[in-house]
Amino acid sequence: MASPNGDEELDEYPDGSVRLRNPNIELMDQDILYHLALGSGSHDLVSMFGDVKFVCMGGTPKRVEQFAFYIMQEIGHKLPAGTTLLDISQFSYRYSMYKVGPVLSISHGMGIPSVGILLHEVIKLMYHAGVTDPIFFRIGTSGGINLEGGTVVISEEAVDGMLNPCFELPVLGKIVRRPAKLDKGLIKELLALRDPEDPYDTVVGKTMCTMDFYEGQGRMDGAFCDFSESDKMEYLQKLQRNDIINIEMESLAFAALTHHAGIKSAVICVAIIDRLKGDQIHTPKEVLDEWQIRPQKLVSRYIKRYLHMKGRILLDDYSGSSCVKSPRRFKLVQQESESYD
Amino acid sequence: MASPNGDEELDEYPDGSVRLRNPNIELMDQDILYHLALGSGSHDLVSMFGDVKFVCMGGTPKRVEQFAFYIMQEIGHKLPAGTTLLDISQFSYRYSMYKVGPVLSISHGMGIPSVGILLHEVIKLMYHAGVTDPIFFRIGTSGGINLEGGTVVISEEAVDGMLNPCFELPVLGKIVRRPAKLDKGLIKELLALRDPEDPYDTVVGKTMCTMDFYEGQGRMDGAFCDFSESDKMEYLQKLQRNDIINIEMESLAFAALTHHAGIKSAVICVAIIDRLKGDQIHTPKEVLDEWQIRPQKLVSRYIKRYLHMKGRILLDDYSGSSCVKSPRRFKLVQQESESYD
Repeated sequence: MASPNGDEELDEYPDGSVRLRNPNIELMDQDILYHLALGSGSHDLVSMFGDVKFVCMGGTPKRVEQFAFYIMQEIGHKLPAGTTLLDISQFSYRYSMYKVGPVLSISHGMGIPSVGILLHEVIKLMYHAGVTDPIFFRIGTSGGINLEGGTVVISEEAVDGMLNPCFELPVLGKIVRRPAKLDKGLIKELLALRDPEDPYDTVVGKTMCTMDFYEGQGRMDGAFCDFSESDKMEYLQKLQRNDIINIEMESLAFAALTHHAGIKSAVICVAIIDRLKGDQIHTPKEVLDEWQIRPQKLVSRYIKRYLHMKGRILLDDYSGSSCVKSPRRFKLVQQESESYD
Repeated sequence: MASPNGDEELDEYPDGSVRLRNPNIELMDQDILYHLALGSGSHDLVSMFGDVKFVCMGGTPKRVEQFAFYIMQEIGHKLPAGTTLLDISQFSYRYSMYKVGPVLSISHGMGIPSVGILLHEVIKLMYHAGVTDPIFFRIGTSGGINLEGGTVVISEEAVDGMLNPCFELPVLGKIVRRPAKLDKGLIKELLALRDPEDPYDTVVGKTMCTMDFYEGQGRMDGAFCDFSESDKMEYLQKLQRNDIINIEMESLAFAALTHHAGIKSAVICVAIIDRLKGDQIHTPKEVLDEWQIRPQKLVSRYIKRYLHMKGRILLDDYSGSSCVKSPRRFKLVQQESESYD
């Protein structure tokens, strides 16, 4: 179905529930989400995940664990005393998944196949849990093109290494092409959440998604390199002329598969290097750590605003997730406790 | 350079050292192996890795940790009292790497991009460490075609989802094609290490390497499925007619990149399902765990035979890695110790 301005509408059920474009799943006795260590026959997925609204994905288990604790603090989500977050998919040994109220924080590993497997299973998870209108975010890192390190990039669309805005996948020996579209409305809403006080830029542009970090991104520091510095610069300038402002390795499948499932999604990455200036990343870890929080902050603002509008949090009056009355005294008690033999 | 029988010879330096097909690396002040948390300027890579002979890769951190302890036992490698194995790349939060004497055991994650990044950095690691003639193994799981679950498959060559025996990668906007060749001699040597006592088959055949686990492998249980059961069966039968006996997601890049670097390599996977019989994996965990040891066993036999020939282990007289004189008494001491308050 096409809207008047030529954009394809999101293809979802009228009640907003997630569309599985697969008639087989509802006929299955049980559906094992193999790479998540969950199953529709073994787990009560409705009671575990029925309240999910936001699915946030990032590369490493470490980063998504950190995001889970960060968003818990931000939305003032409280856990029962004596409990902490658990990696729900710990026994998959593949992805890590944390749940903080309406937010899932999941690691997708590196590259299109890894994020693709995860998306198939998380989309099925949303379906089994009866979730309606979920919003998916990829929160990542990327190489920027003519961007200062630390700039936040909201992807307008994703293109592959040949600049096609499609995810191409061989299925039964034929190439299936799916448009790598991202939700324009969501991009606008995210952009509007920039804070003039942010000591960095937040911009919108096209993202190139590659199959390789070294040769595939025109880096000269891999195990192999058959091109010259001037070939590389010419290529990066060509990308610039095509409005590509950053390069990463997951957005293409992320955009195409969420779009195909009728799920609103956005890709927000920080640029950790300006590729016009080099290949290797020499920025100190402390700086990189601070940069990686920036796209998380933007997503957090979006989630907080949503929950605030729904009356589910009071933005000016949340006190974090832990039962702390006085942070100073809390710290003192912890220190004293540690120093006792 | 081509040999009389048309096979391309492995392209390595006369002294066997690993060939970096990249003139830039030796000119760099330091080379940061970003995804391994190692660097040529920060780490003494020669003293850390100079004695490596075998690089064994598997999908998950858990599996490669388990392989590291297994091979330690098998080759009788001893650690100093009061030490244990450490994940060398723990601070990358991406891959896990364990070293047991001449053996590295490294997780590669899922899919071609993930194993590709790792191979670039491990090949550079071998170069920086001055390793000569290393042998790379991928030890994995796969879907079999007309194979009983638990069968071990040594890959003869890898093909992509369109059955091309090449790894195709866009580099600076042009498709680069590299043959996904595996070492024929190594395949023969591995096949010769089958034990008639093994309660399972070990076979050689072609491996299809896909970009997706669901639609890309003709599974009907993903979030999307646009084909019928008979389309799927027709496709799997076509694969059979093309001598493809298993399907996985890393062999293509693994074969192509090691071959391009002049490194001998082999892919050994266990088939954990017969795809002619279904898509979902219902085999109990205990059985799967035992199956996953089988390709490890074959690689272990190869490594032990090599070290034996070099006089580096006595095959009949090794006692494991720990300083145990009597396993029975050792266990008793442990138990007693645990039960003391």
